[in-house]
Amino acid sequence: MAEVLIVYATDHKGTLRLAEALAQGVESVQGCTAKLKTAEEAVADDVLAADALVLGTPVHMGCMDWRVKKFIDQHCAGLWMGDKVVGKVGGVFACGSGYGGAGGGCELTMLAMLNNLAELGLVLVPLPKNSLGYAQGGLQWGPYGRAHNEDLSPIEGGLPAERAQAARQHGKNIARVAQALAGKAIFG
Amino acid sequence: MAEVLIVYATDHKGTLRLAEALAQGVESVQGCTAKLKTAEEAVADDVLAADALVLGTPVHMGCMDWRVKKFIDQHCAGLWMGDKVVGKVGGVFACGSGYGGAGGGCELTMLAMLNNLAELGLVLVPLPKNSLGYAQGGLQWGPYGRAHNEDLSPIEGGLPAERAQAARQHGKNIARVAQALAGKAIFG
Amino acid sequence: MAEVLIVYATDHKGTLRLAEALAQGVESVQGCTAKLKTAEEAVADDVLAADALVLGTPVHMGCMDWRVKKFIDQHCAGLWMGDKVVGKVGGVFACGSGYGGAGGGCELTMLAMLNNLAELGLVLVPLPKNSLGYAQGGLQWGPYGRAHNEDLSPIEGGLPAERAQAARQHGKNIARVAQALAGKAIFG
Amino acid sequence: MAEVLIVYATDHKGTLRLAEALAQGVESVQGCTAKLKTAEEAVADDVLAADALVLGTPVHMGCMDWRVKKFIDQHCAGLWMGDKVVGKVGGVFACGSGYGGAGGGCELTMLAMLNNLAELGLVLVPLPKNSLGYAQGGLQWGPYGRAHNEDLSPIEGGLPAERAQAARQHGKNIARVAQALAGKAIFG
Repeated sequence: MAEVLIVYATDHKGTLRLAEALAQGVESVQGCTAKLKTAEEAVADDVLAADALVLGTPVHMGCMDWRVKKFIDQHCAGLWMGDKVVGKVGGVFACGSGYGGAGGGCELTMLAMLNNLAELGLVLVPLPKNSLGYAQGGLQWGPYGRAHNEDLSPIEGGLPAERAQAARQHGKNIARVAQALAGKAIFG
Repeated sequence: MAEVLIVYATDHKGTLRLAEALAQGVESVQGCTAKLKTAEEAVADDVLAADALVLGTPVHMGCMDWRVKKFIDQHCAGLWMGDKVVGKVGGVFACGSGYGGAGGGCELTMLAMLNNLAELGLVLVPLPKNSLGYAQGGLQWGPYGRAHNEDLSPIEGGLPAERAQAARQHGKNIARVAQALAGKAIFG
Repeated sequence: MAEVLIVYATDHKGTLRLAEALAQGVESVQGCTAKLKTAEEAVADDVLAADALVLGTPVHMGCMDWRVKKFIDQHCAGLWMGDKVVGKVGGVFACGSGYGGAGGGCELTMLAMLNNLAELGLVLVPLPKNSLGYAQGGLQWGPYGRAHNEDLSPIEGGLPAERAQAARQHGKNIARVAQALAGKAIFG
Repeated sequence: MAEVLIVYATDHKGTLRLAEALAQGVESVQGCTAKLKTAEEAVADDVLAADALVLGTPVHMGCMDWRVKKFIDQHCAGLWMGDKVVGKVGGVFACGSGYGGAGGGCELTMLAMLNNLAELGLVLVPLPKNSLGYAQGGLQWGPYGRAHNEDLSPIEGGLPAERAQAARQHGKNIARVAQALAGKAIFG
């Protein structure tokens, strides 16, 4: 049994769709439940109640959306100060318009969120290369969706299926790690 | 002649003091002026009017303060989309409580801001090791102030003089690069 | 039962001492063993045989020592290509002369190693703030030792005890996570 | 007049081709010359003699090739220690097989090299979004070439023209910044 909290911001629903796919992946693991909250809704108690925290964001100027950062500053910083969530599990995902063929800054974006998760003391789950959908939507730090092509033209039908697939796989992986570590005293 | 815009957020005035020291450094260069704005005041037109943009932030959970990110998302993203400030000059600085002896995430914090400046097409000014104050307050990406010791106890008198010195030096360097590049067609 | 492989390079024994402290931490967990290899000795089979891989390096110009990178390029790249170690556990540590009061590039150094571990598909263990020795020798990504002061003068007696303590704690944490995940099918 | 030194490693000539394109860009600026050296040939004196240093690498496991790092450790570290190249100009580029649609770690790879350049005190030149070829081969930190598709199948004809174009543009930009700053006392 594990509860995975997914906190995200979204502009044009690309990140929302990834969040939903990730939640499906979580719930495909027996006994696991996913809880989706926008960065504006989520509070510290949501994190305390969960076994895993996943952060998702559109890529904006090579970093997370300011609303995700506001959630971190206002709700996670206190958890860090009090060592309240050490030993839970964490992961990230991102979605970009992705101008250019190299992810448009998605790597530093994911690392900016992972840095917060590392400070909180969470065990971090990467996205292995052999995950379903990786060739289209994978980065080692987590799934990367994009609803636009390299030249910024929109992809017909929105987020491609392979990219949603990578997000589902990530949700599944995170749920399993959370389950394996739940109730174990790892740190301290 | 060059105008350097310094955009910052501050909690307990540590970052503000660094910003003021940086502004002094800018104005020590003949013909250069500094303009200080909080991240909540600054708008795109301020960036357009300046020759250089410097971003400063407290270190919060290994990344910039959400108010600085909001400024970037709401005022810089449009400048990026329109290629409006390509070839100007950029730099960063940060201030942390700094728990632990390794900067508490200041390096990724500075890189998160530099990523935005790189996307805008700004020529980036580092802080060389031989800068005044570097041994106390330097990181290769910019000055790093802290008003607390490694164990989070406050440093008496606030920001130490050496750290302000590194910020002054950084302001001076950025003003000089901005002056050297002003009016030159570098890109395109 | 878990075996933790520690691969490191060392110049003046600072990183070696951290590696030894980390190994002590591993072996303080019942049923866990540590294996130390220099980056020049270690080969792919060592990684295959272990449950966890820990990389340690001196900080050189803001990145890992070239010998550690050579180990990654020549022995880990093939493991990545073949998805051979997905689901094992990973962690990092670093040691710097540390000019300047902000870690001298230790954060990007650790991330450069973590990037390799993430690509291999390893579950990553951070160093929580409440770890013993953190105030002296902790960074969220792993323990950071330094045998020199901020002004590059040597610390008498070499690596301070608190810094070794953080490394021991990290070893203990990594061993426990490896034990908790051993034999579990997490990914795929 | 400015001399730009390009130091690179190459496996299957992808990075070499980018280096050559970058050199063409440099030499398209009147009075500027490019010098290409492999990471195994280049020495500290080459850097001392140049006005700008550009580092290029294949992307291997999310970081630069070990030969580039060996060049940095053995030839650049001394330049850093002696503050010998402060105020010169720097830039980077990378080439990847690029499994997955997000650059396969190219961003941290470029940052690992930029970290060295920042420590040396070089003024850093990004690649603006409006550069020729950016939609195919651009990242904010520099040009990113790839001779394989997202699924690792080879691109017919090798490095696509648009990617070489981004590299040429980067060479041109770096040469111009080097020319504008040559002989100016910026730092100190």
